[in-house]
Amino acid sequence: MKLSNRIASMQQSPIRKLVPIAEEAKKNGKRVYHLNIGQPDIPTPKVFFQALKSFDEKVLKYSFSEGMPELRNSFSKYYKKHNINFDKDDIIITNGGSEALLFTLLAVCDYGDEVLIPEPFYTNYSGFSEVGGIKVVPITTKAQEGFHLPNKDEIEKLINCKTKAILISNPSNPTGTVYTDKEIYMLRDIAKEYNLFIIADEVYREFIYDGLNYISFAQLEDIKDQVIITDSISKRYSACGARIGCVASTNKELMEQILKLCQSRLCVPTMEQIGAASLINVQDQYFKDVAKEYKKRRDIVYNALNNIDGVFCRKPEGAFYVIAKLPVKDAEKFVIWMLKEFDVDNETVMMAPAEGFYATEGLGKDEVRISYVLNEESLKKAMLILEEGLKKYIRSN
Amino acid sequence: MKLSNRIASMQQSPIRKLVPIAEEAKKNGKRVYHLNIGQPDIPTPKVFFQALKSFDEKVLKYSFSEGMPELRNSFSKYYKKHNINFDKDDIIITNGGSEALLFTLLAVCDYGDEVLIPEPFYTNYSGFSEVGGIKVVPITTKAQEGFHLPNKDEIEKLINCKTKAILISNPSNPTGTVYTDKEIYMLRDIAKEYNLFIIADEVYREFIYDGLNYISFAQLEDIKDQVIITDSISKRYSACGARIGCVASTNKELMEQILKLCQSRLCVPTMEQIGAASLINVQDQYFKDVAKEYKKRRDIVYNALNNIDGVFCRKPEGAFYVIAKLPVKDAEKFVIWMLKEFDVDNETVMMAPAEGFYATEGLGKDEVRISYVLNEESLKKAMLILEEGLKKYIRSN
Repeated sequence: MKLSNRIASMQQSPIRKLVPIAEEAKKNGKRVYHLNIGQPDIPTPKVFFQALKSFDEKVLKYSFSEGMPELRNSFSKYYKKHNINFDKDDIIITNGGSEALLFTLLAVCDYGDEVLIPEPFYTNYSGFSEVGGIKVVPITTKAQEGFHLPNKDEIEKLINCKTKAILISNPSNPTGTVYTDKEIYMLRDIAKEYNLFIIADEVYREFIYDGLNYISFAQLEDIKDQVIITDSISKRYSACGARIGCVASTNKELMEQILKLCQSRLCVPTMEQIGAASLINVQDQYFKDVAKEYKKRRDIVYNALNNIDGVFCRKPEGAFYVIAKLPVKDAEKFVIWMLKEFDVDNETVMMAPAEGFYATEGLGKDEVRISYVLNEESLKKAMLILEEGLKKYIRSN
Repeated sequence: MKLSNRIASMQQSPIRKLVPIAEEAKKNGKRVYHLNIGQPDIPTPKVFFQALKSFDEKVLKYSFSEGMPELRNSFSKYYKKHNINFDKDDIIITNGGSEALLFTLLAVCDYGDEVLIPEPFYTNYSGFSEVGGIKVVPITTKAQEGFHLPNKDEIEKLINCKTKAILISNPSNPTGTVYTDKEIYMLRDIAKEYNLFIIADEVYREFIYDGLNYISFAQLEDIKDQVIITDSISKRYSACGARIGCVASTNKELMEQILKLCQSRLCVPTMEQIGAASLINVQDQYFKDVAKEYKKRRDIVYNALNNIDGVFCRKPEGAFYVIAKLPVKDAEKFVIWMLKEFDVDNETVMMAPAEGFYATEGLGKDEVRISYVLNEESLKKAMLILEEGLKKYIRSN
């Protein structure tokens, strides 16, 4: 029984495919510091659980395909706080940012169409593209340049009649880059000139460090109907397990079409929507505290990495990831070795090999993505373990 | 900005597209009996909510992509009770039966491949196929024959080198048909002979009336690895809003590939999985009571429909749907008229026009799908309103 080529050519998640090896290590009594996945340790605001607990209907019914009005209103209020003008009707609730992305790509691209994506990129971008038979055309960016974008004409060279959209995450997962005003306006100009959609994944909007200026693509009034925001509460409120996200756009035709996809999966879970709707009541101080905490962690990780012989990274500007070049040939092999063969006092570190974040063959082989989502003490320990591990690995290989 | 053809050619859900018209009617103070959607009124077992309420972790974390082990075990136990031999590892948790179907189709079919589906069929089958560029080839069945299958050679005529699978729901949504042993074995023989997958949507497994025999496709030992079960707790436990389903198959290669799709959307909501895992503790008496209740409702609706002049339907054998032929030219127009123009004491009825459940153009235009998911009294009233509505509509058109 032959399965489809489309699924065969889909790569396994580089963030999750080594999980069984980590589970094995844990079974053998090893403690694993998870720097591979963006699972924050920050407590989820209590209002989420309180809202769930006060649910007292007898039947857990289907919700609206476009999401509960309360939750759509709650997102709209949130956006207005950020000077982004989305009304309730510009917002459709999705199963996490993941579904928002999948539905957007399906609505914008036909089989064989192309999407430009700065690489390295969040690995599931290519997974969703594979599902839709869409070709990912990478805009290559480099560690040495802090993963900032190349010039306009470099990007223009990649555009042809099949190009439908630019997909970009800002702040970037996996690089931690926050794009400058100049970069944002350049992409706007390209979108305008070549009539492209901009699909902006802005789930890390709150995580900007060092007082950098941040422009949401949704604030670009002159290409308003070309901008599609995909969003999620996962990182913002440390509620990854809720799987609540949204697509937001003022393009009415697009939203009508996406609604058809939403109807096909009926609705997003009711209880999680109720919890999520309550999050609008979280005080602004929560975000300030969280951003401060992450900045501290970023500094720990960045400083530690730069003190390890042969490791290179630029200081990340946002989100909670950094891509580091390691003094190894094959970072995946090293990551597996760390899980299987290495420990310091029975503790080790798991990272995500970065090769899977690139579309261009051969790039990222010596890089890993590190998520700094653990507390200060754990991160310090994890960095020491990584340093020791690297030393031993290089000696023995 | 042109959107994709794939999304443009996707139909709006015939079950949900008229919802705005119903909402409008309700705003104007009309009561609407919803016979359009399979949203049962049976209380969700309390253990579901109790499990949620006893959750006391601080962070709502991502779960495993394949689902929580507790929930996979709970499904496995459930299957064993039904003489279906699925271990935990044969089960992957999905966002409702919807995602189970979408992922299965994507894993089995490439762009341009074909799937045989008895029509009329659950409308989202064609939606998911559209997403994957898969051609739906209908096996036409007829109201006069209780929507049972045609002969083997009629079905064989539809098979070519692009045919990858037969997709069937048993008991059937939207027809309420329960396929006979003979029909099941015929499909098994076809799958064997032509090397096809059988994708069996068995979410209504508990709803079989009149002591009919029921065979699950998962019980066909000799084509075990060709069978893929898509399932859901939505109807079984009246928990539609939980959006918890699963794919189950002993075909290891298939399950590994589907896991890649699961990884791309990270996981199914954590809280809903916790609630769903507790449902295995629901007593068997619950299902007996529920089936008894639905049988009573079926009888009310079936008897009422057959007493209305010009209406035709065969007695449905399972699930909680019936497709009725009405003495009108265009059932959709009639359904809209019932919502907009008609009422009895300020009450009216909403049904799903059946045309959208057919792939063959022109079929089902005079049919509606009725879900008998309301209580006895409401159903009786709804049937009277339908009878009055039909009389008035025929007189005035």
